[in-house]
Amino acid sequence: MPLIAVVNGPNLNLLGERDQDMYGKASWEEVREELREKAAELDVELEFYQSNHEGAIVDYLQGLRGRAAGLVINPGALTHYGYSLRDALADLGVPVVEVHISNIFAREEWRSRSVISPVAKGVISGLGTRGYQLALQWLVAELGRG
Amino acid sequence: MPLIAVVNGPNLNLLGERDQDMYGKASWEEVREELREKAAELDVELEFYQSNHEGAIVDYLQGLRGRAAGLVINPGALTHYGYSLRDALADLGVPVVEVHISNIFAREEWRSRSVISPVAKGVISGLGTRGYQLALQWLVAELGRG
Amino acid sequence: MPLIAVVNGPNLNLLGERDQDMYGKASWEEVREELREKAAELDVELEFYQSNHEGAIVDYLQGLRGRAAGLVINPGALTHYGYSLRDALADLGVPVVEVHISNIFAREEWRSRSVISPVAKGVISGLGTRGYQLALQWLVAELGRG
Amino acid sequence: MPLIAVVNGPNLNLLGERDQDMYGKASWEEVREELREKAAELDVELEFYQSNHEGAIVDYLQGLRGRAAGLVINPGALTHYGYSLRDALADLGVPVVEVHISNIFAREEWRSRSVISPVAKGVISGLGTRGYQLALQWLVAELGRG
Amino acid sequence: MPLIAVVNGPNLNLLGERDQDMYGKASWEEVREELREKAAELDVELEFYQSNHEGAIVDYLQGLRGRAAGLVINPGALTHYGYSLRDALADLGVPVVEVHISNIFAREEWRSRSVISPVAKGVISGLGTRGYQLALQWLVAELGRG
Amino acid sequence: MPLIAVVNGPNLNLLGERDQDMYGKASWEEVREELREKAAELDVELEFYQSNHEGAIVDYLQGLRGRAAGLVINPGALTHYGYSLRDALADLGVPVVEVHISNIFAREEWRSRSVISPVAKGVISGLGTRGYQLALQWLVAELGRG
Amino acid sequence: MPLIAVVNGPNLNLLGERDQDMYGKASWEEVREELREKAAELDVELEFYQSNHEGAIVDYLQGLRGRAAGLVINPGALTHYGYSLRDALADLGVPVVEVHISNIFAREEWRSRSVISPVAKGVISGLGTRGYQLALQWLVAELGRG
Amino acid sequence: MPLIAVVNGPNLNLLGERDQDMYGKASWEEVREELREKAAELDVELEFYQSNHEGAIVDYLQGLRGRAAGLVINPGALTHYGYSLRDALADLGVPVVEVHISNIFAREEWRSRSVISPVAKGVISGLGTRGYQLALQWLVAELGRG
Amino acid sequence: MPLIAVVNGPNLNLLGERDQDMYGKASWEEVREELREKAAELDVELEFYQSNHEGAIVDYLQGLRGRAAGLVINPGALTHYGYSLRDALADLGVPVVEVHISNIFAREEWRSRSVISPVAKGVISGLGTRGYQLALQWLVAELGRG
Amino acid sequence: MPLIAVVNGPNLNLLGERDQDMYGKASWEEVREELREKAAELDVELEFYQSNHEGAIVDYLQGLRGRAAGLVINPGALTHYGYSLRDALADLGVPVVEVHISNIFAREEWRSRSVISPVAKGVISGLGTRGYQLALQWLVAELGRG
Amino acid sequence: MPLIAVVNGPNLNLLGERDQDMYGKASWEEVREELREKAAELDVELEFYQSNHEGAIVDYLQGLRGRAAGLVINPGALTHYGYSLRDALADLGVPVVEVHISNIFAREEWRSRSVISPVAKGVISGLGTRGYQLALQWLVAELGRG
Amino acid sequence: MPLIAVVNGPNLNLLGERDQDMYGKASWEEVREELREKAAELDVELEFYQSNHEGAIVDYLQGLRGRAAGLVINPGALTHYGYSLRDALADLGVPVVEVHISNIFAREEWRSRSVISPVAKGVISGLGTRGYQLALQWLVAELGRG
Repeated sequence: MPLIAVVNGPNLNLLGERDQDMYGKASWEEVREELREKAAELDVELEFYQSNHEGAIVDYLQGLRGRAAGLVINPGALTHYGYSLRDALADLGVPVVEVHISNIFAREEWRSRSVISPVAKGVISGLGTRGYQLALQWLVAELGRG
Repeated sequence: MPLIAVVNGPNLNLLGERDQDMYGKASWEEVREELREKAAELDVELEFYQSNHEGAIVDYLQGLRGRAAGLVINPGALTHYGYSLRDALADLGVPVVEVHISNIFAREEWRSRSVISPVAKGVISGLGTRGYQLALQWLVAELGRG
Repeated sequence: MPLIAVVNGPNLNLLGERDQDMYGKASWEEVREELREKAAELDVELEFYQSNHEGAIVDYLQGLRGRAAGLVINPGALTHYGYSLRDALADLGVPVVEVHISNIFAREEWRSRSVISPVAKGVISGLGTRGYQLALQWLVAELGRG
Repeated sequence: MPLIAVVNGPNLNLLGERDQDMYGKASWEEVREELREKAAELDVELEFYQSNHEGAIVDYLQGLRGRAAGLVINPGALTHYGYSLRDALADLGVPVVEVHISNIFAREEWRSRSVISPVAKGVISGLGTRGYQLALQWLVAELGRG
Repeated sequence: MPLIAVVNGPNLNLLGERDQDMYGKASWEEVREELREKAAELDVELEFYQSNHEGAIVDYLQGLRGRAAGLVINPGALTHYGYSLRDALADLGVPVVEVHISNIFAREEWRSRSVISPVAKGVISGLGTRGYQLALQWLVAELGRG
Repeated sequence: MPLIAVVNGPNLNLLGERDQDMYGKASWEEVREELREKAAELDVELEFYQSNHEGAIVDYLQGLRGRAAGLVINPGALTHYGYSLRDALADLGVPVVEVHISNIFAREEWRSRSVISPVAKGVISGLGTRGYQLALQWLVAELGRG
Repeated sequence: MPLIAVVNGPNLNLLGERDQDMYGKASWEEVREELREKAAELDVELEFYQSNHEGAIVDYLQGLRGRAAGLVINPGALTHYGYSLRDALADLGVPVVEVHISNIFAREEWRSRSVISPVAKGVISGLGTRGYQLALQWLVAELGRG
Repeated sequence: MPLIAVVNGPNLNLLGERDQDMYGKASWEEVREELREKAAELDVELEFYQSNHEGAIVDYLQGLRGRAAGLVINPGALTHYGYSLRDALADLGVPVVEVHISNIFAREEWRSRSVISPVAKGVISGLGTRGYQLALQWLVAELGRG
Repeated sequence: MPLIAVVNGPNLNLLGERDQDMYGKASWEEVREELREKAAELDVELEFYQSNHEGAIVDYLQGLRGRAAGLVINPGALTHYGYSLRDALADLGVPVVEVHISNIFAREEWRSRSVISPVAKGVISGLGTRGYQLALQWLVAELGRG
Repeated sequence: MPLIAVVNGPNLNLLGERDQDMYGKASWEEVREELREKAAELDVELEFYQSNHEGAIVDYLQGLRGRAAGLVINPGALTHYGYSLRDALADLGVPVVEVHISNIFAREEWRSRSVISPVAKGVISGLGTRGYQLALQWLVAELGRG
Repeated sequence: MPLIAVVNGPNLNLLGERDQDMYGKASWEEVREELREKAAELDVELEFYQSNHEGAIVDYLQGLRGRAAGLVINPGALTHYGYSLRDALADLGVPVVEVHISNIFAREEWRSRSVISPVAKGVISGLGTRGYQLALQWLVAELGRG
Repeated sequence: MPLIAVVNGPNLNLLGERDQDMYGKASWEEVREELREKAAELDVELEFYQSNHEGAIVDYLQGLRGRAAGLVINPGALTHYGYSLRDALADLGVPVVEVHISNIFAREEWRSRSVISPVAKGVISGLGTRGYQLALQWLVAELGRG
């Protein structure tokens, strides 16, 4: 059963408590629950990781080498300046889907630039917390196709 | 049964004939077929439209007023300069998901800027032709939630 | 009786249905009615044209050569990228007044740049649909002066 | 009888003496005469003010608080850097029409940016000294509508 | 006998009527006549197409797939923003020569940037209507060489 | 008893009448009263000056040479283009604290750049009219320390 | 007794050892001592936190939710790129005063841009370590006013 | 005897008191004395004017119309934003030499841009207060040549 | 028999040895041979010049004054910074065609800007070494037309 | 025996596993082995540190105060945004050599800007893992010279 | 008798033959003659040098070390990109006056930036060939003052 | 015995006479002597070349084709605009190390951009004249490894 990691960057542990118009009402725990159900259905193993530390996420990603078959990542604000994260993702060598809960292209100018996107397979932005599920679904299909 | 329109911009009628590394091997006819199956499953009506003319797409979108409940659009190269299309989408007043087959953020610099995204609910980029299906699936869920 | 053409670009056929805070409540039909009355008063012939197609507007402008004595144009979103329209206006060789219903200088940054203005005699922006009448009035006076 | 102020910025007292291809042949006295006739016709009171001092125009605008119902202003070169003037106009709280005799969008690049426009209701540019009359006419209609 | 298409963008149907200092005195009909003679001499078939609609040119280019061996294109003002045209040219897969009658590098700043050039084999700018003949001549030699 | 001058730029005489969400409810007279009390407490002499004229403020600052020991200045909109004011402040040779009532860094982009700050000792922005008092308090402490 | 947190970013633990012309001679311990005295006087509780890790500061700020009534923060170099910190501050929902010991607007160009300021209530820059006290004093007054 | 006006902008009345490394030790009175001697020698009449008010300088320049044959101007900081001054100089219609005591091209970036230079005949920068004499000398020769 | 000079800038003496994918396989000697044949056919005299020194090319161009009737120039890398060369070409006063063997618009960003083009009659880019022949052919026709 | 620290930023612990064309085949362990031999030869003590956390590197650098005589640092992706690291290096007060294994000036545009270089003594880029040895060798010579 | 060198950059040997509206009618020989007379009067020795080669000018400037007391230079187009010339001037260590015959600030945008000015004592621009004499006169006075 | 060329650009022949804080006290002759000793030790042949002429350096580099195995180059100010030099280096096809004596990244903004670096193997900047020796040492090792 292939392993897919779902990684969240800074401040995303507070889902449900942050600005709900922007990030929705579901807590991170609820989102994980839905993803676990989806994963069971799709017959993949999930592993969750969240940190407010760019370095910790890089450490975690390095630890996934040889273990994970794909990655869903919402880099939070690291999206816009996390070049170390970017290099770690590029080094990892598995398909990566970048997810944003809010539509980063409809907010402040600086949020519309992602330094992560050029090393991702694809990007899902603005589709709320359901974006994680779509990313997971796509990765599983992609892995099955390979 | 709500109507969801799936709109393709310039040159996307040649899917399967264009650069396959970038846009995949499936023809537009095959993609539509898969979408029709998905729609049947999700119990929504689909309508397809493609044009190489920005004006024709604007005409078409105006004709959707009051008929469509949601929209999936891949604006093709209009993504980067189609301000008339943007205004038409903003005027339409239904949820719009912008889809790109290739990852526009990993190509030429000018392709990473979309003038459409600020008026879309969300964006799916780089997930191949399956991006259309994810967009459809999300729209249906979104409509159901409203 | 000199002919003055009044040309509207993309999405302006929906006046009265678009965002009313921005574009006012009058429909295009009502605006035309007021312009016809004004024209009768000023003793000029009016011709109206609207299209969502830049190419069609260029075709129409070429057809005005030798027929029209002046032009009122609201280019809609083509204001910001319609270089073909700009060339057609420059080639036409009659006085052109550019009209915008909303104040394009008080909206998104990109709306404050017009590629049309450098080839127009003048610009009226933000005075609502009455801007068309002022433009007409000015053109008639200008033609009378020449 | 509502009061409408007509304000001219630096160097506009020399109308008729400045470059006539750009600013026309009419002197400021002649322009005022035409505006007085128009005002009589429209049943509004006019007050004229011109200064080469940004500070003096700000002083004058502050003195209009509670007295004026609308404002026509040609800020001259202050158009491009008069942020104090801009704040004074925003504070005034009555409809403002910005007028330029020449078409500022068809001259040097720096003249095509107005720091005033974002706080004006609308802009009339390039329609010669008749632009003042159109602005007056519009303001009166606008006030009547309110 | 290989087919070479000669395509003109917006406003180029008015050659001979537009600003003659910029675009020369020859009409499009005269230019075509000279090209036909040249083609006869070079033993290639010519096909002409002009449109003021970007979409129509894209349609036409798609229809050339498998028929044309080479392309001469003067995109007119689309040179500067016709990204859909650019994609269509890139998809076509035959050698393209971009022609400009006037020297676009010696005019307004914005005219010196072509979004088409990166997908063309080469560019001829400023050599008047004879530029079309040089392009044709080069294409024929190029095809003979392949 | 050392003299500290408190200088206000354009439109700040209208405190309490301007947008109250931005600039607070206190009038300039009330702010001065509070500052006088504070000054009495701190044993310094205060002198107030306000003008809408950059030139007048420069005149005033030149007149402070040899008289003032420190300066609190809220340059109003001159913050963003008052290079003459900047030079006058630099020439004055006493510690200057720049005060802004609203947080200029959270408003329009152009308001976040101050041409004055590089010649000030420090900046207090966004702390309302109490910012003047903090500036005064700091200056007195600073002078005592020297 | 309300809690106010005083947070220092990278390298600020070395106050008194870093460049003294820029940052002053007082050690962080001495600054804290003065702040404790001030807090006692103002009847508020203080909590100090310093870290060289952006992630750790974000962790800390999250832990303040529901505990702190206000925040004084000197983000150190994170001022210029700490978007995760910015989001954490925006999420916190209590008044924040940003403090810089040196005048960041009078140093290298890149130091004059703060990504933090748009989510702060206000900014104090260049007033040395006394800036912390002024910030504290203001916050207490602000809380008392609410 | 032709009249040549020598005009100084903001803060230049303090020559000799300002930063002497930058602006020299001579007072404005001494500079004038040397210019008067030079003028006597060259047989021209001189008139001096200095103001810290851009508006006052514009007023003064308008009053020179028909009186002055040439102008030496050191615009001080207005060099960099005095567009009203620029227009007044352009309207004046006599040869203008722009003088800067310090070398504005070897100081802060923003000082190296003059908005005045495009309407001046020439510029002398960095040659100290003797620059005024060279400008005067050149103007007299220029007038003699005409 | 009119003289046409063919001038090559830095590194173009190594044609045939440089990157052949970019610059072709023909040596400069072979290119010259073809040009000589073409010239004989067209009844013009040719003169070749190549140098790696901008100064030497300027010297050579000055020596052509009164001798040459037209010029073909491939400035090599001087295309992008050779302002002295540009001035020399502008001074020469004969028609100039700028030639580039590779398509400079499809390479590095900096190669797409030519400082030479604004003073050339026209530009041929990307048509390989045959571009020289087309330029020659055009110049001869142009001279015959004059 | 003086201590020289060798510090590696994010992802550099994976040397030998990352893209080998870019970063070479040697593992970090092998590089360290070679450096240890070199150090023995040069009679200096070495200390190695690597972290994916910017904050941890700052902590480590602070701990070197008074212990280290020189520093070799490869900041990895922190090169481009690690302003906290930069400040820590500036505070450290010993000679720093910045090393990059790949040539950062021949890769993506954003990699060619280092925020670290202005506080380093020097930079070695693109010379592979041998760059560390050259840096060490230089530092030892430099220290010997002081 | 001190030596002052007068150096001209590319294309300035053609004075009197180049565009006379821009550069005047006097030939370089005539300009030199006038300078020689002036020098005799001022009791200094003159040496003239002109080259179209930046390298040759640098060679020449190096040869002036220890010989020349001052320098007048018109760098021609090297003004805008001659960084080697700039370094040579900075190394020379004598006062340099940069002269431009035409007013470079009133021409193309790129001509208004000089890379030379930051290392010159001063700049004279737009005063025709008499600018050389003023520069000479100033240098002699400056040397006498030292 | 492989040949390695050591090339110096403009003004570097004056090492030891130029600003010694920036470029050190060693003369070019002394630097060469040290390099000769190093070369003897490393068993390679050295050839030195210096010129103030970009063209001469290009000539020299072309003459190295087939003779040299590697290159050390300090382009001096050509670093920032020597595109012809860049092309010559790219054409040469041997490993190139770019050396700067001072740290170009810690000086004026324009010095931090090298147009040469993208075609070099690596860069050594700021390590004084010893940078040449490190470059030589690296090249010899690199050649031995090949």
